[in-house]
Amino acid sequence: MAKASIPKAAALRLSLYLREVEALLAAGAATVSSGQLAESLGLTAAQVRKDLARFGQLGRAGIGYPSAALAEEFRRILGTDQMRPVALVGAGNLGRALATYSGFERRGFKITALLDNDLRKVGRQYGGLIVQDIAKLHFVCQRDRIRLAILAVPGSAAQDVADLLVRAGIQGLLNFSPVRLETPAEVVVSTVALSLELEQLGLAVRLRNE
Amino acid sequence: MAKASIPKAAALRLSLYLREVEALLAAGAATVSSGQLAESLGLTAAQVRKDLARFGQLGRAGIGYPSAALAEEFRRILGTDQMRPVALVGAGNLGRALATYSGFERRGFKITALLDNDLRKVGRQYGGLIVQDIAKLHFVCQRDRIRLAILAVPGSAAQDVADLLVRAGIQGLLNFSPVRLETPAEVVVSTVALSLELEQLGLAVRLRNE
Repeated sequence: MAKASIPKAAALRLSLYLREVEALLAAGAATVSSGQLAESLGLTAAQVRKDLARFGQLGRAGIGYPSAALAEEFRRILGTDQMRPVALVGAGNLGRALATYSGFERRGFKITALLDNDLRKVGRQYGGLIVQDIAKLHFVCQRDRIRLAILAVPGSAAQDVADLLVRAGIQGLLNFSPVRLETPAEVVVSTVALSLELEQLGLAVRLRNE
Repeated sequence: MAKASIPKAAALRLSLYLREVEALLAAGAATVSSGQLAESLGLTAAQVRKDLARFGQLGRAGIGYPSAALAEEFRRILGTDQMRPVALVGAGNLGRALATYSGFERRGFKITALLDNDLRKVGRQYGGLIVQDIAKLHFVCQRDRIRLAILAVPGSAAQDVADLLVRAGIQGLLNFSPVRLETPAEVVVSTVALSLELEQLGLAVRLRNE
């Protein structure tokens, strides 16, 4: 299987399949059908079967797929079967919220470093992490082989910090600042647009009421 | 134009078009072409033209679309040309981060109420908002005609608070808890899955390195 050929939309479905299969597993379902996955995610069963075939021989259409093995295989493809270290820059309200967010670790990501440029914050502890001086970023990322980072700094500082992260060897950047970052092509940037989520929700409510 | 016929993917493109047009406007571009929008968003120009035609007669293919009028029309369709009040429940780290987040107001959403069930937090002020007792939720939502809410409470409390919000007349719920909420069909729920964002980023980095 050529993993590099997974298109973005299919990659997203992979995460959604995993969550659905986990929910079914938690409810005690030993097998799951393509029809079940399709219905709960609003896809056609043909699309689900096509995806599952693309991800490898995961089961047999018709008699269903074994839930536990399916979840394990999804995690293997996603790379979340192993814990990966993540650097978090910004120890403001959002950074502190992310530092104490339990959802990451359950998904194979451990925030191992929390950094800030505010020396009044350095040395404080949040969610088991001691805030370190941003000046240590390069050293920490190299030492702990950190390739992923979360950016939770004010928009005005975001580009400067992104530059530091790129120089520290970060390959993937989850950006919470409402700013378009300039980074080299080999760095993957994903921006969490909180206002976009609210805008889409508002539109959905509006359409429903018309 | 039957707005209720906008499919989810097209609605999302609408938000992305608006952001792109605004960026072009900020850079001084009086007109924008379907090709420009297509290239920056990774779509085909045909798709962009089809969308723009669906959203109404916004311009003329070939000679480009007037940027300012296009942005205004997008905002009108999205409903973000008017400020809408939003209730935020949860004054923990995440709630406080969202209360002080400047991105919402720029997008037509004003958090007008911040509520929590922790009486030690009630009365404190964050981002210009005084934390109110959750017991006042129904009264406040009715009085201020609030139809949208943001849920930033621990997963263990999320369903109970969602039930309260539904009873208070909330029609759209932006959920930050890593929990699947049960709500009546007429309530739109959008869950911001922070771990899913990181998972997708990690996969993209992994695929790039293979």
